[in-house]
Amino acid sequence: MGRKIREILLHRHDFAIAPLTELLLFQASRYQHVETVIQPARAAGKTVLCDRYTDATIAYQGFGRGIPLEQIRGLNDFATASLKPDRTFLFDMPVETGLARAAQRMARQPDQPREDRFEQEALAFHQRVRDGYLSLAKAEPERFVILDATKNIDDLHLEIQRWLRSWVAE
Amino acid sequence: MGRKIREILLHRHDFAIAPLTELLLFQASRYQHVETVIQPARAAGKTVLCDRYTDATIAYQGFGRGIPLEQIRGLNDFATASLKPDRTFLFDMPVETGLARAAQRMARQPDQPREDRFEQEALAFHQRVRDGYLSLAKAEPERFVILDATKNIDDLHLEIQRWLRSWVAE
Repeated sequence: MGRKIREILLHRHDFAIAPLTELLLFQASRYQHVETVIQPARAAGKTVLCDRYTDATIAYQGFGRGIPLEQIRGLNDFATASLKPDRTFLFDMPVETGLARAAQRMARQPDQPREDRFEQEALAFHQRVRDGYLSLAKAEPERFVILDATKNIDDLHLEIQRWLRSWVAE
Repeated sequence: MGRKIREILLHRHDFAIAPLTELLLFQASRYQHVETVIQPARAAGKTVLCDRYTDATIAYQGFGRGIPLEQIRGLNDFATASLKPDRTFLFDMPVETGLARAAQRMARQPDQPREDRFEQEALAFHQRVRDGYLSLAKAEPERFVILDATKNIDDLHLEIQRWLRSWVAE
């Protein structure tokens, strides 16, 4: 289900998707994911690790697209019944480095679609998204851990392991 | 765009679509429609005739699925920037008659998909939807015209023409 919605959102179309349409589609996908995957896992006592959640919506649709943040926050609360993550890792790097990595990934996989609707956005869009993420992290330092994503993957792995161990010990 | 979302909404899937997911998808489709079709037509001075709008969301997702009406109204206002129709025709008939018509339509088109996600709902669901529509019409008698959809199509056509002429004359 979420995959079908994401297909609409990520693929490049020959028509424009209005920013609020995009926002509502992400919220639909989010709600379906919370309802059918995250909440059942929590009910079973599992720890849930989620790649992108409500912060991504604030960063991309709010800071990136310019939709007022209070509108997004209202819909975020609606679509998640206000379920928030305990901790959040932000993999941060300069926008140019991130886009260069995406380009490398595409060069390695020439049979894959070239780039998704977000990757094709202008540099300024990605800069606003990054700034948005960093301001969210600044506003909630007790929840966010900012990781330097330019580090090599083994060092990052160890750093994440250390954080996870410290939280389990709490 | 709206068609792609409607495909997800109307087709029968081997997974359940949560009621709030369905609501958010309809709102995404609605916003895209208002933004790219209805508002440009209004800006060009055209009269817009729309088959299903926010009342359908209140009737199906509110009365039918049981989502609180105030939640739906909030999202309706958000997705339409509170744009409301001046007049609304409600084609009303007993639920059994409506479902029998849908079955006849399917019998005439055996190569089409059997029924959509809404048509396969139980009788009680459709009864709640009908009751919902009728209560909306009762709450706004100046906007709604309730038509007896069991009448033959020529008589209905004349009746609608008379209403339209009276509004143009206003």
